[in-house]
Amino acid sequence: MSHISTGVEYALHCMLYLTEPPHGVRDASVRDLADLQGVPVDYVAKLFTKLHKAGLVIATEGAKGGFALARPPSQISVLDVVDAIDGDKPIFECREIRARCAVFDEDPPPWATSGVCAIHAVMRNAEKRMREALAGDCLADLAARVVAKAPRGYGPQVVRWLDERTSNKRVARSEQD
Amino acid sequence: MSHISTGVEYALHCMLYLTEPPHGVRDASVRDLADLQGVPVDYVAKLFTKLHKAGLVIATEGAKGGFALARPPSQISVLDVVDAIDGDKPIFECREIRARCAVFDEDPPPWATSGVCAIHAVMRNAEKRMREALAGDCLADLAARVVAKAPRGYGPQVVRWLDERTSNKRVARSEQD
Repeated sequence: MSHISTGVEYALHCMLYLTEPPHGVRDASVRDLADLQGVPVDYVAKLFTKLHKAGLVIATEGAKGGFALARPPSQISVLDVVDAIDGDKPIFECREIRARCAVFDEDPPPWATSGVCAIHAVMRNAEKRMREALAGDCLADLAARVVAKAPRGYGPQVVRWLDERTSNKRVARSEQD
Repeated sequence: MSHISTGVEYALHCMLYLTEPPHGVRDASVRDLADLQGVPVDYVAKLFTKLHKAGLVIATEGAKGGFALARPPSQISVLDVVDAIDGDKPIFECREIRARCAVFDEDPPPWATSGVCAIHAVMRNAEKRMREALAGDCLADLAARVVAKAPRGYGPQVVRWLDERTSNKRVARSEQD
């Protein structure tokens, strides 16, 4: 498994469809977002539970009954989504090998284990650089890049697809009543 | 498992003992390096096979029969060791979710899949930053930091420990003859 999971990829794609027009809508149901992307609904539901817990999305009420972004897409970084889905897992776990050196005879002196191991420090610094890069890109940046690449008709087509699903549901519900 | 493996940690610690005095020696056997750090010999042997394949260490001959660094420690970066042990594995694997959008009706247009997905591009950039940081630190830097922290007697103590193991082996071998 890669360090940044498939869950992050799915969550980001879903959230991009919640960045409002031209690329998306204000809110959508988990089922519609999952079907829009050919991804299992249960899986997307679990992702949204995590996003909700992290305060990145809010549940919406009414006919659409789904989720919306909790704040503007310019204020949700890729790092926010990575941490919400994968947790803040380190790229490296130090096993304090330095304390095991045979010359210490199983009793490492305080200097040998004080502070962070030099190797661990290098890994932490690399991780910091990676996280800074992920923090430097937000949903609004991503949406702008998708919009710039897609033909003008694509965004409205997605919005229409989602709107039709919602209307169909509304019709189905009123027929049940 | 973390992205950067325990094997990388062990390999770096072993290689630090091969940076010559004051912290280490010129060459040592896999068994001695493993025992010096309380790490399984078979595991360290596998790591050295990888380091050797990547051209970072060379096999040495003679009484000591082991490995030495293939080039000065200032010319072996932490990234070299990470790539030698873990391979160049990405932090993220793009599953091309963008092509699955329902509005494409299972026939994504060329614009939708051309170039790198915007989400993948962000991950690649973050990975690049991480790799740059790992490339920016070398074994010589690490050794200098350990030397600066350890009391003056530590390096010579390690060298003596390794030398004694070699002499004991030489004595044992001559007694067998």
